[in-house]
Amino acid sequence: MSPKVTTELLKQLRQVMKNPKYVQEPIQAYIVPSGDAHQSEYIAPCDCRRAFISGFDGSAGTAIVTEQHAAMWTDGRYFLQAAHQMDNNWILMKMGLKDTPTQEDWLVSVLPEGSKVGVDPFIIPADQWKRMSKALRSAGHDLVPVKENLIDAIWTDCPQRPCKPLIMLDMSYTGVSWRDKIVALRSKMAERKVLWFVVTALDEVAWLFNLRGSDVEYNPVFFAYAVIGMNTIRLFIDGDRMMDPAVREHLQLDSTLDPEFKIQVMPYGSILSELQAVGAGLLPKEKVWLSDKASYGLTEAIPKAYRYLTPYTPICIAKAVKNASETEGMRRAHIKDAVALCELFNWLEKEVPKGTVTEIIAADKAEEFRSQQKDFVELSFATISSTGPNGAIIHYKPVPETNRTLSVNEIYLLDSGAQYKDGTTDVTRTMHFGTPSAYEKECFTCVLKGHIAVSAAIFPNGTKGHLLDSFARSALWDCGLDYLHGTGHGVGSFLNVHEGPCGISYKTFADEPLEAGMIVSDEPGYYEDGSFGIRIENVVLVIPAETKYNFKNRGSLTFEPLTLVPIQSKMIDVNLLTQKECDWVNDYHQKCREVVGAELERQGRHEALRWLIQETEPLTRVQ
Amino acid sequence: MSPKVTTELLKQLRQVMKNPKYVQEPIQAYIVPSGDAHQSEYIAPCDCRRAFISGFDGSAGTAIVTEQHAAMWTDGRYFLQAAHQMDNNWILMKMGLKDTPTQEDWLVSVLPEGSKVGVDPFIIPADQWKRMSKALRSAGHDLVPVKENLIDAIWTDCPQRPCKPLIMLDMSYTGVSWRDKIVALRSKMAERKVLWFVVTALDEVAWLFNLRGSDVEYNPVFFAYAVIGMNTIRLFIDGDRMMDPAVREHLQLDSTLDPEFKIQVMPYGSILSELQAVGAGLLPKEKVWLSDKASYGLTEAIPKAYRYLTPYTPICIAKAVKNASETEGMRRAHIKDAVALCELFNWLEKEVPKGTVTEIIAADKAEEFRSQQKDFVELSFATISSTGPNGAIIHYKPVPETNRTLSVNEIYLLDSGAQYKDGTTDVTRTMHFGTPSAYEKECFTCVLKGHIAVSAAIFPNGTKGHLLDSFARSALWDCGLDYLHGTGHGVGSFLNVHEGPCGISYKTFADEPLEAGMIVSDEPGYYEDGSFGIRIENVVLVIPAETKYNFKNRGSLTFEPLTLVPIQSKMIDVNLLTQKECDWVNDYHQKCREVVGAELERQGRHEALRWLIQETEPLTRVQ
Repeated sequence: MSPKVTTELLKQLRQVMKNPKYVQEPIQAYIVPSGDAHQSEYIAPCDCRRAFISGFDGSAGTAIVTEQHAAMWTDGRYFLQAAHQMDNNWILMKMGLKDTPTQEDWLVSVLPEGSKVGVDPFIIPADQWKRMSKALRSAGHDLVPVKENLIDAIWTDCPQRPCKPLIMLDMSYTGVSWRDKIVALRSKMAERKVLWFVVTALDEVAWLFNLRGSDVEYNPVFFAYAVIGMNTIRLFIDGDRMMDPAVREHLQLDSTLDPEFKIQVMPYGSILSELQAVGAGLLPKEKVWLSDKASYGLTEAIPKAYRYLTPYTPICIAKAVKNASETEGMRRAHIKDAVALCELFNWLEKEVPKGTVTEIIAADKAEEFRSQQKDFVELSFATISSTGPNGAIIHYKPVPETNRTLSVNEIYLLDSGAQYKDGTTDVTRTMHFGTPSAYEKECFTCVLKGHIAVSAAIFPNGTKGHLLDSFARSALWDCGLDYLHGTGHGVGSFLNVHEGPCGISYKTFADEPLEAGMIVSDEPGYYEDGSFGIRIENVVLVIPAETKYNFKNRGSLTFEPLTLVPIQSKMIDVNLLTQKECDWVNDYHQKCREVVGAELERQGRHEALRWLIQETEPLTRVQ
Repeated sequence: MSPKVTTELLKQLRQVMKNPKYVQEPIQAYIVPSGDAHQSEYIAPCDCRRAFISGFDGSAGTAIVTEQHAAMWTDGRYFLQAAHQMDNNWILMKMGLKDTPTQEDWLVSVLPEGSKVGVDPFIIPADQWKRMSKALRSAGHDLVPVKENLIDAIWTDCPQRPCKPLIMLDMSYTGVSWRDKIVALRSKMAERKVLWFVVTALDEVAWLFNLRGSDVEYNPVFFAYAVIGMNTIRLFIDGDRMMDPAVREHLQLDSTLDPEFKIQVMPYGSILSELQAVGAGLLPKEKVWLSDKASYGLTEAIPKAYRYLTPYTPICIAKAVKNASETEGMRRAHIKDAVALCELFNWLEKEVPKGTVTEIIAADKAEEFRSQQKDFVELSFATISSTGPNGAIIHYKPVPETNRTLSVNEIYLLDSGAQYKDGTTDVTRTMHFGTPSAYEKECFTCVLKGHIAVSAAIFPNGTKGHLLDSFARSALWDCGLDYLHGTGHGVGSFLNVHEGPCGISYKTFADEPLEAGMIVSDEPGYYEDGSFGIRIENVVLVIPAETKYNFKNRGSLTFEPLTLVPIQSKMIDVNLLTQKECDWVNDYHQKCREVVGAELERQGRHEALRWLIQETEPLTRVQ
């Protein structure tokens, strides 16, 4: 890939930074963050402003353009990619290295005295604004909100904001009607004595109204905000999507009953003025609830004394605990997903030795098998199909320039998942299509021991996920090995494949306690730069555990794997497993065989069934 | 115990709260925190102001007295004790219970509009001041510093501040001279570009100058502050302690060489004015380094723009990593301590069946055996000698009212330690002098498995202790059991038995990474209210671990037990141990036998040696 030529673009940006049409006073620097107005992890093309101005299109990065300089901060995953994609107008700021300045420090070092630094207030989260603003102020500069986005001002062929049709989910999928979700939300609001709740995250809007969309790739969400009052519901959404009679019926837009459930539909762009009107009408002690990650622009619409900010919203917490319908849907989705992967792996076993299967072909084949399954919607993230040294690049995605051919000599790592109408999947399997070395098997088995240690862990109700992270590493640590990522993330129910507020990571401390019904991934790994990558990932459901005793009546929890795809026996050094671990693998494979086998049978996929049966033969330890 | 009568005292306090001799304007509430001016965990009698005004003398509690009310906040350990010790002038605020208001909320609910709340600015840490002040201000009140302590004003028979002779430690104990410690500190100061460092914690002053004291029970420290500049050293200390020729020699007070190592000795009480003078003389960008736990009063002496605050000071971090001389000293101290405990347990085995040994007698006997050892100074904390149900009270200390007789029918828990000139010990053993039940053995064995899981853990350099906490609980969790305290704390070298910045607890996230040379305790437990308590505690040294591989060249760490006291085999259900765990116990006992056995032999303690040999017989699992 050749770098994007940005000389002209930067010239234009520097012009609008001084143009009174856009800025009240000239600004000496402009910050271009990664996100969209909803702090989404995955963003729509129209929101890829940092990629537009710089050429660098990795998932994380912040650009800052001053009158003289242009600098890009990104993390270790993207040092190489950013260096390739950006021309020499740009300075690459390698985050995490000792000598790399923070954005604030760098700005202070290059700005003339008393500078103004601009940023789009609707893109920058309130907490980031606060930190940056404080640092600049203490050095004599000012962070100023620039209401019109300056990238949009120069982006002449900016794609339109997507506005695709909505999908309605009935009670068989959601288990709870949107009216009942509003009732529950209002009761949480009453508990905290707040009068209004502002829904800013796209997956929270989608979950609340039992609607899905396809405005953003991989995430079945749509651009919208909602403002919930004790007697009013306002939905801010564009396009003619509300003209669809099925949507009108779903949201009861034409019903005259129950004024407190009457949804007022308003234009997406009117959220700010409506919120300002709410803010202006508040009486003392009346509060408005917002996520502390909401944009600075929206947060400022509510005067400070009236704000009630929390790191996790009540919707985020409610959404994380799946009800029986959602859990059943997730189970169904994972069985279908396992069928697709049995087909894929059976196909790979036959095709890889021929030397014709590349990483891209394998990824496409995985999508093809998945798309044959009922209620398949799309993938849940870009497939990580990586062989040999590419497997060691944790966030790898095959592109023609790196596309490697699978062979019987290298380890293959496939991390993939899909959105089905009944659930979201995310599974990683690491395979060898020839004969793995003793060292590869040793590493794989350590990772497997870690995977089992988390999956089989029993822990008290109220335990936070980060307290389980070391279980996943213990066997690796014993050998002097480790992996530099967290162990698990929350998974949505036909929603974002990464969702809060729970997870399993040494990095977080602010995670919410695990409770029965939550769904997380369990994905330890081991990566050897330049050689291979290993990861074993199941999506697991938090369930109550039976224990012999029950200290303080707290009750215990454990995990049930929802993912039911065989773990390649060939990669396991059985004698490194304890008997308990060996039993775990055999029980797991027995369940794969029974549950997925029945579905393969039902779908008439006999060859894949034979593959499954062979792959789930019980292991035996040599004593 | 009968409650302290406080009616007259409270009347006097309320008078001084309005007396212009003490307060510029009348104050409507006065806060009496637990601590002293150095944020010490253990305090001298003259600093027990909260106990004086209320009668409640537990280690944690904050009293607030308003014109109408007197309230005491304390935690679950002390609900009963506080209720017994306080008369009905006092409202007990049970912290941790859902309906208990915070101090701020309670103040706001009872104070008349626009009240002034006073506190001694030299007792309250700066971070607590900030929180309280903000909460009060937002409700229209003011937190005001009251320079003269109002309790001292009414405490007519307040004991004198102790001012006991100092102990000098030579290089054979400390490994590093105080001059070299100053050099290292100044180099840390230069790195952070600070000109001054203010030493406020008593153990940090003691460590820096290689001095010890006995101003506070159990902690070999003395009342002092120090202010270190790049070319100056000021030591604030009272009494004629600096007249002792040996101290003068140790500190080179009469030497004329090296002006940058010339110690200026100043009165303890002049710290504030001297610090204000330092603050007044600073040029822009010059900084003064303070702990963020230093008192509000001292912190305010330095204008805000010149402060450099960190949670852990460079002394705290340097002090935690023991050098070879300190480590050897700690080893020697633990061998002597083990000798004393072998004597004690041998004695208890003979005496307990006679029914004449109470908890207090056992504790005294432990102290007697310890005091026979070379370089014994004092105990390192109040001995927890507890049998039967008393063992379930985690912070129990036997007093005549609760003193129970040890018997062959109940579990006995002894948590005790001492200060020797060469090191500090802290060890817990749980014993049965008759026949433990299967259930007691099961619980003990789960605790032992947790103890071993931490002690034998291998983990990468840079791992924080809190990531190891779950290892200690896993076996208990599997049975539905747990314990409600952390797993370990840092231990000083002939210094405080609890010291930062490292530890092993699910509660902390701000702990510093473990590194070779740090010393912590490993003390999981299990407590059954009304029945028994179990805890197994060793002090362990962080050492490099040999591993098969070495990921990213990080190196690995593990623990070496310094405590060498047998773990009672009678309490172990061997068949609940894995072979690895059983081997760990046997290896540990073998080391106890060899190392402590040799010392018992040397000291001619033959009966205790026989006991040790019998208690360290290898265990065998029935397969």
